[in-house]
Amino acid sequence: MTQSLVIEEQGPRDGFQVETRFIPTELKIRAIEKLVSAGLKRIQVTSFVNPKYVPQMADAEEVCAKINKIEGVIYSGLVLNAKGVERAFKAGLSHVSASISASDTHSRKNANKSLVDAQNEFAEMVRVAKEANLTVRGGLQCAFGCRYEGRVSEQVVLDLAQRHLDLGVDEIALADSTGMGNPAAIQRVMRQVVAWANGKTVGLHLHDTEGKGMANMLAGLQVGVTLFDTAFGGLGGCPFIKGATGNIATEDAVVMLAQMGIQTNIDFAAVAQLSKEFEVFLGKKLPGKIKQIEQIVI
Amino acid sequence: MTQSLVIEEQGPRDGFQVETRFIPTELKIRAIEKLVSAGLKRIQVTSFVNPKYVPQMADAEEVCAKINKIEGVIYSGLVLNAKGVERAFKAGLSHVSASISASDTHSRKNANKSLVDAQNEFAEMVRVAKEANLTVRGGLQCAFGCRYEGRVSEQVVLDLAQRHLDLGVDEIALADSTGMGNPAAIQRVMRQVVAWANGKTVGLHLHDTEGKGMANMLAGLQVGVTLFDTAFGGLGGCPFIKGATGNIATEDAVVMLAQMGIQTNIDFAAVAQLSKEFEVFLGKKLPGKIKQIEQIVI
Repeated sequence: MTQSLVIEEQGPRDGFQVETRFIPTELKIRAIEKLVSAGLKRIQVTSFVNPKYVPQMADAEEVCAKINKIEGVIYSGLVLNAKGVERAFKAGLSHVSASISASDTHSRKNANKSLVDAQNEFAEMVRVAKEANLTVRGGLQCAFGCRYEGRVSEQVVLDLAQRHLDLGVDEIALADSTGMGNPAAIQRVMRQVVAWANGKTVGLHLHDTEGKGMANMLAGLQVGVTLFDTAFGGLGGCPFIKGATGNIATEDAVVMLAQMGIQTNIDFAAVAQLSKEFEVFLGKKLPGKIKQIEQIVI
Repeated sequence: MTQSLVIEEQGPRDGFQVETRFIPTELKIRAIEKLVSAGLKRIQVTSFVNPKYVPQMADAEEVCAKINKIEGVIYSGLVLNAKGVERAFKAGLSHVSASISASDTHSRKNANKSLVDAQNEFAEMVRVAKEANLTVRGGLQCAFGCRYEGRVSEQVVLDLAQRHLDLGVDEIALADSTGMGNPAAIQRVMRQVVAWANGKTVGLHLHDTEGKGMANMLAGLQVGVTLFDTAFGGLGGCPFIKGATGNIATEDAVVMLAQMGIQTNIDFAAVAQLSKEFEVFLGKKLPGKIKQIEQIVI
């Protein structure tokens, strides 16, 4: 098992996007900067999508322009089409997370495209990103199940992952967008993807909808996954997935890893503090666990 | 990894004991009977402790007398001293869970005994139980950390576990009472206990206080643990542990196991339904996850 790995903070994108109350741009920026101060070296700061469908992300360009960027930190933007890649480039990002769904129904709801059209769009996203000299993380949503279609064929997922790699993505990440994944399935699929990736970073984006988020992280770790998406406080969900709930909580994941002897150099107490501030702002409890504990023993 | 295992329901004991509002005996009995109907073959129905300290368990004898016992189901009572064993026997149980703490401070708070005194009491519990022809599960609380003492020495825990086995317990279970355990520690300790147990059942009692409950279950499964304690809805906690929260939720654990191809023959939907009924009765949300999901795909 790896002794060091990358945590990619998703709170400002996956977390904020489902909140119905608009989070002021200044507050988004402050959250991003606090997360970076806490030691996060990867952070998905926004998505370049249609504000008509995801109004919370309407300030994507403004967020990118105003964050005080720190050397050595990768600021990522989620993109679902080539136009999004162009917007991310113009907004000054050097890394995009280009993502399509492994489920046709979810693809139509999330990106308004059939699975076939989405694959063509994906190739175009990679082409545009490469031309603009951006590094690309290739993503697959609903890789372990879809609330509309049920189980998604592991063969289909593997074929799509291989296609991503063939197109020359710099990294690949599979998303359990629905939380339907389980440790056995995660290991079957990710073991193969890690082998094909041939040294490139392989990631998992995990939701805790069915309570398996941390177990699935452990399963991924055990087969060589070295990048994990998390969101502070356990924020998150997808506006186009029924019953979707949060990502695994950054602070909880960091604590488990540290207790296992795996260093992330992330200050989990600082992240937990931010989660508590957002509980006040949002007026609700967030699902992360360790923020409620007075003293964590590593 | 094992393809079949035992889930021991703890809701009626570990779950109910921390609720401040007294749960009427009739309701306790109904919950126990519904859990058995849902397929639970092991259920800890009460504890034989001092009602002055744990008033919720004051009806231990009445619960045992009134449940409609089903052939093939093991009804267990938690006991912390020899007097408890006698009470369990008189109440008609044929199996006791005799437990001491691996932490001296917790032992004093939970059982009013030093660790040394508790060990002597444990030997006495086993003796009395054997004389009465009861099967005994030997337990160790706070085996992976104590909120008062911090980390508990793995060597101390292993020594205590070996002593339990030497005394002739029928089964052994280690409890992560505080949720401070992590998958790496679980595997180090449990791999050794499984080896020493020499075919006897080895169990884990897991709390989700730091969000690692399900990951710790997976870790245990991978090293041969075949008995897991869970509580419907994720109820639970210890009245004498600061910030203690629930066990892993029975219905969530069963879903994860089923998705991994491990059969428990427990109807998770029926358990989830009971959890929802208790949310109404208790007037609060319980932490279990899958009860909120319309349709679970195995």
